[in-house]
Amino acid sequence: MKTRFDLDQQELPKAWYNVLADLNRPLKPPLDPRTNEPIAPEALAALFPTTCIEQEAATDRFIDIPEPVLDVYRRWRPTPLHRAVHLERALDTSAHIYFKYEGASPTGSHKTNTAVAQAYYNGAEGVRHLVTETGAGQWGSALSFACQTFGLDCTVYMVRISYEQKPYRKTMIQSFGAEIFPSPSERTAAGRAILAEDPASPGSLGIAISEAIEEAVRGEATKYSLGSVLNHVLLHQTVIGLEAEQQMELAGEDPDVIVGCVGGGSNFAGLALPFFHTAAKESRPTRFVAAEPHVCPTLTAGETRYDFGDTAQTTPLLWMHTLGHDFVPPPIHAGGLRYHGMAPIITHLVEDGVIEPVAFDQLDVFESAILFARAEGILPAPETAHAVHAAVRIARDCAAKDEKKVILIGFSGHGHFDMSAYAAYLDGELVTAPARGGSTAQLGESRLFC
Amino acid sequence: MKTRFDLDQQELPKAWYNVLADLNRPLKPPLDPRTNEPIAPEALAALFPTTCIEQEAATDRFIDIPEPVLDVYRRWRPTPLHRAVHLERALDTSAHIYFKYEGASPTGSHKTNTAVAQAYYNGAEGVRHLVTETGAGQWGSALSFACQTFGLDCTVYMVRISYEQKPYRKTMIQSFGAEIFPSPSERTAAGRAILAEDPASPGSLGIAISEAIEEAVRGEATKYSLGSVLNHVLLHQTVIGLEAEQQMELAGEDPDVIVGCVGGGSNFAGLALPFFHTAAKESRPTRFVAAEPHVCPTLTAGETRYDFGDTAQTTPLLWMHTLGHDFVPPPIHAGGLRYHGMAPIITHLVEDGVIEPVAFDQLDVFESAILFARAEGILPAPETAHAVHAAVRIARDCAAKDEKKVILIGFSGHGHFDMSAYAAYLDGELVTAPARGGSTAQLGESRLFC
Repeated sequence: MKTRFDLDQQELPKAWYNVLADLNRPLKPPLDPRTNEPIAPEALAALFPTTCIEQEAATDRFIDIPEPVLDVYRRWRPTPLHRAVHLERALDTSAHIYFKYEGASPTGSHKTNTAVAQAYYNGAEGVRHLVTETGAGQWGSALSFACQTFGLDCTVYMVRISYEQKPYRKTMIQSFGAEIFPSPSERTAAGRAILAEDPASPGSLGIAISEAIEEAVRGEATKYSLGSVLNHVLLHQTVIGLEAEQQMELAGEDPDVIVGCVGGGSNFAGLALPFFHTAAKESRPTRFVAAEPHVCPTLTAGETRYDFGDTAQTTPLLWMHTLGHDFVPPPIHAGGLRYHGMAPIITHLVEDGVIEPVAFDQLDVFESAILFARAEGILPAPETAHAVHAAVRIARDCAAKDEKKVILIGFSGHGHFDMSAYAAYLDGELVTAPARGGSTAQLGESRLFC
Repeated sequence: MKTRFDLDQQELPKAWYNVLADLNRPLKPPLDPRTNEPIAPEALAALFPTTCIEQEAATDRFIDIPEPVLDVYRRWRPTPLHRAVHLERALDTSAHIYFKYEGASPTGSHKTNTAVAQAYYNGAEGVRHLVTETGAGQWGSALSFACQTFGLDCTVYMVRISYEQKPYRKTMIQSFGAEIFPSPSERTAAGRAILAEDPASPGSLGIAISEAIEEAVRGEATKYSLGSVLNHVLLHQTVIGLEAEQQMELAGEDPDVIVGCVGGGSNFAGLALPFFHTAAKESRPTRFVAAEPHVCPTLTAGETRYDFGDTAQTTPLLWMHTLGHDFVPPPIHAGGLRYHGMAPIITHLVEDGVIEPVAFDQLDVFESAILFARAEGILPAPETAHAVHAAVRIARDCAAKDEKKVILIGFSGHGHFDMSAYAAYLDGELVTAPARGGSTAQLGESRLFC
């Protein structure tokens, strides 16, 4: 039986899909915190290159991918789409399970899709140095690789808990020529303020973003780069879903349920948005399920309001699901999902009932990760394992009801740099983290029926 | 410019290439150490399944790959062939450099090619448990994955120095459901004998093989599995070269030089042997360069004679290059190249002057590994980095002479589980290991001219 659906290099999408062209109402605009008025594009110019700022508000349905970006994508794209038949057998399910494998990228995750685009646009506009933050290290690896490719310097602030849990991500980032610091650090006012209050702070993406922005703003020919949340980042990720649509066609099936994990929302959006577009056009009842950790339940227990993207309140205000910009999530292993906020596009689609959020405990998540690894031979990243667990839950439900559903997993990355988490799980040292709010588990239960 | 040459799944080779059909004289046979006579196939039946024993001496030029093995191969094969244009630019060389990327396999190296075949053949003959040794952990990971795939139990003895340097390989092996022990261990008479002499022994592949064989022989429905050296193992690896031949044709070039790293010899053979066959048929002057560590200089400074494959003298005697079955190499990071012996097929072709061995210091090797990573975005395993370094040396020589050569690298695996080695290198803690014998560096020098 054919279980892998490859595309030719000629079938690599030449344009990204821009969902802003197809929303039923416009997104609430980002606000300038000084005036509470919609922020002017010029106000973002200290942080981002012009092209990315334009893409934040673009209304064209498709936006051409520059040729130099395609050239780099072609080193590993199109990525494979697999049918997980061995997982299906292990679950004894009538469901068909597919996964789109972004672990094939040089740094092992989807993050390179936007890193390459951002490094290219910055370089083309004369920027020589990019500063960023990273959680689990996937984004920092991707941007350091992209900067190296286009000849830019790169500085990474890595959330301290991940810096300590995953020292080899630091080594990978250094191998690609970037400099890296644990955050909070003494290098910035934002970092020093946090350390003054809590010298043992495990850090958070919100804090690391503040530090990166501070360094970017004070540097010459230096800009900031964000690995998720913003519209242009989600745009660059749609290459995933555009490929997957062609590959599901090769497989001869339409997905009934698309599942992904959400931290800031970019990998989930990258897979889901092109399918959302097609499903709307063809009135297909596709379900979109977004999985998050129950200790950082941005979508399942957060408020929907304007909030800052960072702890030091230096970003524009974004309309989003948020746990509060000062929320510091517990040190779980899925570092990439430890973010207080959410991409405004995802928030919008959750408000509209298009995307269904669920929250899981990391112990359950790792159980499914091991099940997947033994069946399919690939170790998921802890973040990705949330998506895998959602698929396992749905497939088990299908088995119980003898229903056939087609499930498509956004497999955002491999877990080669997260083996300390697997070691802890296998040694019985991984604990159930206390949930914030009590309702998330039930929410997950009720929504996952096949 | 096209820099990646992919094959369709339909182009996956359906048969392995058996070089025994094309050697100018027969290999010297393995001997029974009790009689010094050629060993009878039955004497190997305690260790290996019948099909693998038959393949040891088969004379058909092509041997069909069983359909269930092809099914597993198709999860990641055909693997990509890349042209390393960014490395070429970094070296400012007139050489064209290609690499065949075996890091695309589930466990990150070529080892899965034979692991899957061996697990299949054993399972088909009623074996329920395989025991093996592993150096850097690539082989142990591959066999644990393969055993999981075909429903066999798996036990791995891992050389202690690698077990300690690379704890995450252990975690990966456990994630695939195998049990793993550091070697020398107290579990076997062979291990206890070594520990009695040297309680701090870093271990060696020779010792770990002795322990694995001892456990395999005493177990019920249990056999032993070897990840290199033997003819049937090299046979299974030829899928690499058979794919690469088709891919070089797509690229429109013939390799002038094929480089690979050698520990036991299987990845190098897997790439080189099909090209050797074609080059001989078409009288093409292809060069075959085998790179090894200068602290374990089996080909460049070892003797050619009959020797045991393991320390406890339990294997048949093989005619091979050897540093002596009791040789314990220094604890360098390329754990997969720390073996005292060599595949008899490789020894044969070195004796005939077909394969040219070179030896390198690990500091030089890591310098090239970082150069490669920054140019191409992929971190080579320390073993693979020996092949990369050989290619870099040849390409630099081409640049100096303004000669155009086409170099093909056997890229045996990625370095995601070797980041402690990269960390040591980047932190300046990696040292030049003292060479055994003084002549290997010069040998390398003189043979690498473009």
